[in-house]
Amino acid sequence: MQRPVTSSSSKLETKDERSYANRGMTFEEDINHSNSYYLQSGKSVIHKKPTPVQIVSVDYPKRSAAVIKEAYFKQPSTTDYNGVYRGKYIDFEAKETRNKTSFPLTNFHQHQIDHMKRVIKQDGISFILVHFKSTQDIYFLDAKHLFDFWDGQQNGGRKSIPKSYFENFGSPIQLGFNPRIDYLKIIDELFFPDV
Amino acid sequence: MQRPVTSSSSKLETKDERSYANRGMTFEEDINHSNSYYLQSGKSVIHKKPTPVQIVSVDYPKRSAAVIKEAYFKQPSTTDYNGVYRGKYIDFEAKETRNKTSFPLTNFHQHQIDHMKRVIKQDGISFILVHFKSTQDIYFLDAKHLFDFWDGQQNGGRKSIPKSYFENFGSPIQLGFNPRIDYLKIIDELFFPDV
Repeated sequence: MQRPVTSSSSKLETKDERSYANRGMTFEEDINHSNSYYLQSGKSVIHKKPTPVQIVSVDYPKRSAAVIKEAYFKQPSTTDYNGVYRGKYIDFEAKETRNKTSFPLTNFHQHQIDHMKRVIKQDGISFILVHFKSTQDIYFLDAKHLFDFWDGQQNGGRKSIPKSYFENFGSPIQLGFNPRIDYLKIIDELFFPDV
Repeated sequence: MQRPVTSSSSKLETKDERSYANRGMTFEEDINHSNSYYLQSGKSVIHKKPTPVQIVSVDYPKRSAAVIKEAYFKQPSTTDYNGVYRGKYIDFEAKETRNKTSFPLTNFHQHQIDHMKRVIKQDGISFILVHFKSTQDIYFLDAKHLFDFWDGQQNGGRKSIPKSYFENFGSPIQLGFNPRIDYLKIIDELFFPDV
């Protein structure tokens, strides 16, 4: 399996760094494994994008690989995952929350919302996968619903999406074995009902 | 314009580092500007993926941003550019050569070819943009042609694509003002002839 992902290394396992490196790791790993399963079974071609990094300083030692000596994490301007399934462009973001009753909109940035809106205008498929950690519930929610809440928030509306909204307008995903998180099944139901 | 690209900084301007930082920069910048133009005019949503980096060591100073102290460039497992246009998944790689009469296949890795083959199987649009620096010619070539040469090479065939092949089977792109490299025009001609 080849993934263009910056993975955490053993050197990252010190206490302070652990919280960052492991933030959402299990959920993310489940999604990466699902994508890898889809890829190997020829079902889709969906990858996680590399973490955007601002490189400031690079050493070019003789006879060995270039070493990045100073770099910073950049705020992503798009979503984390994209690719192709049944000819359609697929684009999504995966998020986790410890919150039990709602999903805070602070999980997103304006430019990510802008990106997802553009994708839908281009007739692509855009959605979010949300993991409620306290109850282990996973939901697929079409990005259009997210836009409603996002735009509402700008106008003084609520700052989170109630969990009941996911229950009513999203699609629950049960954890499976292979793939672990079968989100293409939801896409089939919503976008390819005749297949 | 927000691009998830690791840009070169002034600190990269020492002599040794220049050759890496500037490799294909002008052509790449032209493509990035074209993508930005397409994005802002609502024509497509196509981005360059961040450079894949293997992060080894990160400092988390108090009261300031995390600093990556050791990282390495990773070989990309996919192509550099992807996105959506008219609902279709778009995926391509841009390459330059100083070679006057042919384009060396060493510009690609096996897993990039595998990736492009998978994209086409999923009914996505995959191609390469090649810049012949000596003559300033730019060609659009459907990835299927690249596969023929790649697979032929595995069986003892030639290790490069003759420039005459691009002239016969590719589509030339004239440098423009805005967008600089109007590759969507070629996609319209090849994939949306009725629009």
